[in-house]
Amino acid sequence: MEKEYIRVFAPATVANMVCGFDVLGFALDEPGDEVVIRRVKKPGVSLASITGDGGKLPREAARNTVSAGVVAFLEHIGRTDVGVEIELHKRMPIGSGLGSSAASTVGGLFAINALLGNPLPRRALLPFAMQGEELACGHGHADNVAPALLGGITLIRGYDPLDVVALPAPPGLHASVVFPHVDVPTRDARQMIRAKVALKDAVTQWGNIAGLVAGLFTDDHALIGRSMHDVLIEPTRAILIPEFHEMRRLAMAAGAIGFGISGSGPSVFAFAHDAENAAAITSTIQAHLTEQGIGSNGYVSRINRKGPRELSA
Amino acid sequence: MEKEYIRVFAPATVANMVCGFDVLGFALDEPGDEVVIRRVKKPGVSLASITGDGGKLPREAARNTVSAGVVAFLEHIGRTDVGVEIELHKRMPIGSGLGSSAASTVGGLFAINALLGNPLPRRALLPFAMQGEELACGHGHADNVAPALLGGITLIRGYDPLDVVALPAPPGLHASVVFPHVDVPTRDARQMIRAKVALKDAVTQWGNIAGLVAGLFTDDHALIGRSMHDVLIEPTRAILIPEFHEMRRLAMAAGAIGFGISGSGPSVFAFAHDAENAAAITSTIQAHLTEQGIGSNGYVSRINRKGPRELSA
Repeated sequence: MEKEYIRVFAPATVANMVCGFDVLGFALDEPGDEVVIRRVKKPGVSLASITGDGGKLPREAARNTVSAGVVAFLEHIGRTDVGVEIELHKRMPIGSGLGSSAASTVGGLFAINALLGNPLPRRALLPFAMQGEELACGHGHADNVAPALLGGITLIRGYDPLDVVALPAPPGLHASVVFPHVDVPTRDARQMIRAKVALKDAVTQWGNIAGLVAGLFTDDHALIGRSMHDVLIEPTRAILIPEFHEMRRLAMAAGAIGFGISGSGPSVFAFAHDAENAAAITSTIQAHLTEQGIGSNGYVSRINRKGPRELSA
Repeated sequence: MEKEYIRVFAPATVANMVCGFDVLGFALDEPGDEVVIRRVKKPGVSLASITGDGGKLPREAARNTVSAGVVAFLEHIGRTDVGVEIELHKRMPIGSGLGSSAASTVGGLFAINALLGNPLPRRALLPFAMQGEELACGHGHADNVAPALLGGITLIRGYDPLDVVALPAPPGLHASVVFPHVDVPTRDARQMIRAKVALKDAVTQWGNIAGLVAGLFTDDHALIGRSMHDVLIEPTRAILIPEFHEMRRLAMAAGAIGFGISGSGPSVFAFAHDAENAAAITSTIQAHLTEQGIGSNGYVSRINRKGPRELSA
């Protein structure tokens, strides 16, 4: 059934999950973006308003991922007769390493698809979401958009063809997430990574990702923790994140299962055994950053199993 | 309870499993080695006889892995009072890439432990088995000895400390294994591998191993098959194996789930949906090798879930 109006929430995501660079990610219950789509008479897509972005995001419909995705979607399904205006309410920080552009893109696509009575199955929205990432970040990776769209923990097994595998999210697992207010542009963080790596380090890495996947299937927190090590990417990216090693020390001392960088940073995350544990980790890390004169946002979340959801009008 | 005599079977193993270089392996129901241990009065370990090796293996107890492992085990548990003589009956080809030395080492250790009433739990035999691999191959890897000792499919998540994870073996999964009679020394096969690899290839590889592990947990043959690709090691090792690409083509055309090199070769293996399918793949590949004037051994086996077992006297 088609609608006149829809308001949706799309989740922030944590990509990489320490040992799964470019292939693993999971969705959070919070933070995330809110996208409103309203029908208008005139065919075409316009961006009515953006709030919460501090004026950082493009206002032009063709250049903002939330609207560019909707345009591509409408063209694909042959519904260029449809007229909509979009409101994007950023309820999460930009440039944080928490999949901000993915949340906006996925929110827009989920909303337009639902507004038109879901002409496409949810997985079919993924290629449009990847185009949105290309627009926002310069590379069309799926490690944020896949969990943002599908929820849970996702593995991008491969890109040619795109093969997204849903992994189980152990019920007790909670995430502690902290965004320290320092700038780490995604492009710079990617460029610092070496193009060649030692085979022995790659072997260590794939032993760990295999262990992590096994730990998720068996709900084995200890195995998940033993597997959450990154010998290849983190040593380089951590240089750009002040207090990274102290944050890790504090998280692990507070009982974290594992700790690492979210996406390309500067946000960090930890897996915790329960909500209380996750809250303690978040507040310990934030208190330390405050002492160092660094502002931060802190979150405590389960793994979001549903992905985007419709909000009441 | 201690015994005077024991006869055991220890299985051949397929290491790497295509996308899990140095970390994955599984045990076969056949072929394998047979080890007999018999008490004698005089303390110490002697190698009474070796059959089936064509005179290739060292006859000196300190230099053969089957006996060297038993010596190390007896020293470790403080039973240098024990006197045994060992018979090793090779029931599998040597230098085949099927874990021949691992089968002998594991057979000896399983047998001596059982002879003495199992003073050590089975997993505690693993370090001794790795010493055996060091003696036989010049490197103490666990990717053959872990599945030979523990059965099933094993992941070596890491070595420091040693972390072996048992992965589920889907019930229907059968292996087709062919050993073409060509020489590919393990040391040479290892030396051909580049020490540095492209990060993007490593990412492809760890997407695949994560997919393979997920496929094993979900009994998803299609996902297992999509994940059985190796962009890093196989392209180099395949050069040493005549007819490799044609064997793959034949296996896949015969309905294989996936195909690749066993260990460092020259043996190849395929996963198949059932015993009949595995038998067809083995005979198709062997027929092709025969046409090319290359002799071979062929096997059809389930995944061996138990590892070594005691045989009746």
